[in-house]
Amino acid sequence: VQFWFDFASTYSYPAAWRVEALARRQGVPVEWKAVLLGPIFQAQGWNASPFNLFPMQGRSMWRDLERICADLERPFRRPSQFPRPRVLAARVAGRFAAEPWLPDFVRAVFWANVAEDRDIARPVVLEHGLGALNLPGAAWLQEAQSPAGKARLRTQTEQAMAPGIFGAPTFVVGAAWFWGNDRLEPALARAVHHGGGRDVLGVQAHRFAAP
Amino acid sequence: VQFWFDFASTYSYPAAWRVEALARRQGVPVEWKAVLLGPIFQAQGWNASPFNLFPMQGRSMWRDLERICADLERPFRRPSQFPRPRVLAARVAGRFAAEPWLPDFVRAVFWANVAEDRDIARPVVLEHGLGALNLPGAAWLQEAQSPAGKARLRTQTEQAMAPGIFGAPTFVVGAAWFWGNDRLEPALARAVHHGGGRDVLGVQAHRFAAP
Repeated sequence: VQFWFDFASTYSYPAAWRVEALARRQGVPVEWKAVLLGPIFQAQGWNASPFNLFPMQGRSMWRDLERICADLERPFRRPSQFPRPRVLAARVAGRFAAEPWLPDFVRAVFWANVAEDRDIARPVVLEHGLGALNLPGAAWLQEAQSPAGKARLRTQTEQAMAPGIFGAPTFVVGAAWFWGNDRLEPALARAVHHGGGRDVLGVQAHRFAAP
Repeated sequence: VQFWFDFASTYSYPAAWRVEALARRQGVPVEWKAVLLGPIFQAQGWNASPFNLFPMQGRSMWRDLERICADLERPFRRPSQFPRPRVLAARVAGRFAAEPWLPDFVRAVFWANVAEDRDIARPVVLEHGLGALNLPGAAWLQEAQSPAGKARLRTQTEQAMAPGIFGAPTFVVGAAWFWGNDRLEPALARAVHHGGGRDVLGVQAHRFAAP
C-alpha cells in the first residue's frame, strides 16, 4: 500500500500512526509518499485548505479529529497555526522515502506539529527530530533542499495528481485508491486480496519499500 | 439519536439502512429528520452539491459509495440525475416524521432513487411507495404539500442549521453531532453513554419518537 500524506493534513496524523501497525499485521508493505496538497488544491480552484475555506467543515473536522485521537489514545492539541508551512519537512520525507528511519521521522514531525504545537517550518525543529533518530540533522536538511531533493518532492506531487489524488491521507493499492484515514482498513483488505499487481504509477508491488 | 438525512444525499442511503438496526441493538430510539441541504449549501456559498462543484471529490464519492453498498450487500446504481429534486419526498418525511411507517417510506424512496434510478421528483413514484405500505398515497401527498406540510420542512431545515449541521447524514446526540455515515457508530456509543440529556434543540431525549 502506498500511504500518501501531507504534514499539514490533519487526518494524516492518526493515519501515520495506524498504517504501519495495521499493514504489518496483514503482511502488507507500506510505501511512504509525502505530497504537498497546495498545488493540488489550487488545481481545484482552492487557494487555501478547504477546512479554512469552508468553516463549518473545518469546525467539524477539528471536533472529529479530537474524538479520533482520544479513541487512539494519541495526544491532540489543535495547532495554533493551520496549515503550517511544511515544504522542508516534505522534502526530507521525499528525499529519504526509502530509508528505514523515515516512518519514525514522519511521526516525529506530526507529533511536533499536532501534539506539541511546534512550528515545523523551522529547520531547528526538524533538525532536532532527525537528531533524536541519531541522524546528522543539518546535513540531511541540506540534502533535502538540494536541487535533487526539491525535484523529488515536485515529481512526487505530480505523480499524486495523475491518478486523481486530491486529498490526504490517500491509500493506493494497485489501480485503486482510498481517500481518508477511515479508509485504511478497506485499502488493506484490497491489498491482501489483490497483492502483487501493478500500481497506478506502473511500479511493481514487490518493489514497495518495506518499513 | 436524531438521524438527519436528505433524500439526495448519497451517504444517507446506506445510513438509512444501518441506523435502525444498529440503534435498536443498543436500545437507542431513532428520530428521523428530513432536511433539504440546498439552503444549507447556499449559506456556505455553494449553489450546487459539492460533489458536482468539486469533480474529484464527486468521483471519489461515487466509488466510495459503490464499495460501501457492496459491503452492505445493498444494490447500487448511480442515479442518472444527481442530485434529484426531492422537495416533495422531504415534505412527506417531515409531515409524517412520527409515523411508524416513516422509516419504511424513507428507505423505499432511497431504494427508488439509488437502486432503481427512478425519478423521485414524480408524485406517482412517491404515491406508489406509499401505496406499497398500504397508505392512501394521493391523500398523504396532498397533506404533505399543504401550507402546514411545507412549513414543517422549512422549520426542520432551519432547526438543522442552528447547531451547525452542514451535511447529511448527521447524527445528533444531545449537544453533540456526528457527520457522515461512518460516524453512526461513535454517535450511538455517545447515545448509550450520555442518554437522557437534552438535545441541541432543547428537546428531552425521552421524547424521541421510537421507530
